[in-house]
Amino acid sequence: MEIVRDIPKLKETVKKVRAEGKSIGLVPTMGYLHEGHLSLLQAARSENDFLVMSIFVNPIQFGAGEDYEEYPRDLERDRELSLSDGCDLIFYPEVRDMYPEGYSTFVEVEGLTETLCGASRPGHFRGVTTVVLKLFNLVSPHRAYFGQKDAQQALVLKKMVEDLNVDVDLIIKPTVREPDCLAMSSRNKYLTPEQRKEAPLIYRGLEEARKLFREGERDAEQLKLKVKEIISGSEEALIDYVEIVETRGLQPVKEVRQECLLAAAVKFGSTRLIDNVMLEV
Amino acid sequence: MEIVRDIPKLKETVKKVRAEGKSIGLVPTMGYLHEGHLSLLQAARSENDFLVMSIFVNPIQFGAGEDYEEYPRDLERDRELSLSDGCDLIFYPEVRDMYPEGYSTFVEVEGLTETLCGASRPGHFRGVTTVVLKLFNLVSPHRAYFGQKDAQQALVLKKMVEDLNVDVDLIIKPTVREPDCLAMSSRNKYLTPEQRKEAPLIYRGLEEARKLFREGERDAEQLKLKVKEIISGSEEALIDYVEIVETRGLQPVKEVRQECLLAAAVKFGSTRLIDNVMLEV
Repeated sequence: MEIVRDIPKLKETVKKVRAEGKSIGLVPTMGYLHEGHLSLLQAARSENDFLVMSIFVNPIQFGAGEDYEEYPRDLERDRELSLSDGCDLIFYPEVRDMYPEGYSTFVEVEGLTETLCGASRPGHFRGVTTVVLKLFNLVSPHRAYFGQKDAQQALVLKKMVEDLNVDVDLIIKPTVREPDCLAMSSRNKYLTPEQRKEAPLIYRGLEEARKLFREGERDAEQLKLKVKEIISGSEEALIDYVEIVETRGLQPVKEVRQECLLAAAVKFGSTRLIDNVMLEV
Repeated sequence: MEIVRDIPKLKETVKKVRAEGKSIGLVPTMGYLHEGHLSLLQAARSENDFLVMSIFVNPIQFGAGEDYEEYPRDLERDRELSLSDGCDLIFYPEVRDMYPEGYSTFVEVEGLTETLCGASRPGHFRGVTTVVLKLFNLVSPHRAYFGQKDAQQALVLKKMVEDLNVDVDLIIKPTVREPDCLAMSSRNKYLTPEQRKEAPLIYRGLEEARKLFREGERDAEQLKLKVKEIISGSEEALIDYVEIVETRGLQPVKEVRQECLLAAAVKFGSTRLIDNVMLEV
C-alpha cells in the first residue's frame, strides 16, 4: 500500500492501472476513519481490482465558523485501519495542490442543494461537488462509494454525475451505527460524555416517526413533531432541522405519498450531527 | 463517417475506440461551419487517430433576447464540409438529451468570466463551460480544439481544465480571416451587404492599435481610443466594448507591461461580432 501526495504521481499510477485493464474503486474520505468508512472500503475492495482511498479535509466545503481547523486528522491511524481492508493506494493531497493560488472553478447542483443541510450550510455542497469531480478526474474510478448517512450528499452527487455525464458508478452504502444506534461519524469524537449519551435520541426520534408512518400516519407535520418530541428529551440537543423531503428534488412535502427522506440535523454544543431514514410508500 | 445523435451509442463507440488504444480528437462546434472550423478539423485530423466533431447549438450559453432561435443550422452542409477533412464521427445531440427535464448542474469559472464578453453576456460562459465539460465526459478526447477568435472562451476553458484536473489537452488555433481580414464567424451571415463592407474595420482598428503599441505606446486608453476611432468610421457599428486585459486573470490594465489581449465586441444591427489581437511585450 502506497501513500501518494503528489498529483502527477497519482495520475501516472492510475494510468498504468487502467492500461492493465483493471477496474478502479474510489472511496473519498476526510479521514479519521470509522466503521462507516471501513464498510465502504470493504465493498470497494470486493468489487474492484484496484482500491484507492482519498483522505482530504476539503476546506471549500466548510463555511466560516465551521470546524475545518478542528476536524480530526490522524493519517497514521487511518493508514493502519485501511491496511486491513486491502487499500492499494491512499491519495493524501495537500490543499495547495488541490486549490493552487488563483483557483476559481466550481461545480454547482442547483435545487437539491437549497434544502436540509444546504440551507444551514450555504456553499457546502458546492465544495463537495467540486472536490468530488476533481477526485473523479484525477483517479478516473469505475466505481465510487459514499455512505447513506450523508443522504443529501449522495443525491446531489448522483445528480451531478448524471447531469455532467461523468462515467462512474456511484454506490451508496447503508449507514453504520454504534451499538446504541448513533450513526458513525468522525464528529462523534467531539461529544462530551453527557452529549454522547443523549445523541442516540436523534435516531430514536427518526425511528419512532417511521413507526408512526408504518402505522399509517401520512401527515409530515405530525411525523416531524414526533422526532422533535423525542430529541427534546435531551437537555443539550438543539435542533437545526427535522424535515421530510421527496427523494428526487429534495423538496419538503406536506403528506408522505411518495418515497421520502426523513432527515434531521442536531447540534450538541458546537457539534452538528446528521442522520436520516427513508419513508418508503 | 457516422452521424450519432444518441448518447449511449456515442459512449459505446468512443469506448471501443479507446479500447483499441487510439487517440481521440474533439472539435466542439455549433455547426454552420466556416474555414475557421475547418482549420480546427484539419489540425485534429493530423494529430489524432479518431476525429469527433460535435454540432450542438447550446441553448444555455445564449441569454434572453440573443440569437439562439435564429442561429444558422444546416447539418447537410456541415456534413459535406467535414467529410473532406476526414471526420470519423459527428456527434449531433438533441437538446432534450443534453439537458433532460430537471437538469440542474453547472460549471462556473469565476473571475475570468466577469470581464469582456462575460460582462455583456451574463451566464454565457457558464453555459460554455458546462456544455464543454459534458462533451469532454461523453467523448473523453485526448485533445480538444478551439479557435483564438473566442480568446476569452479559450482562456476560461483552459482554466476549467486546469482547476478541475480534466485529462485533456486544449489546443488553440489562430483565427482564420476572410480576404479582407474580417474574422470568420457563423454570424457573419447575418450581416447586410453594407454591414459586411464595414465589418473589417474591427480588425483594422485592432491592427492599427497594435501598430501603435509596437511603436512604443503603452497607455491602454490611447490604444483603445485608436481602435474606437477606426471602428467609428462605420455608420452602423455600435461598440459593445474595446478592452485591454492581461491574459492570466483577464483584468483590465492601464499600461501594457505584460502580455495582454486587445479585444473588441461590436454590434452591427442585432449582429454582435468579436475579434482580438495579442499585445506581446
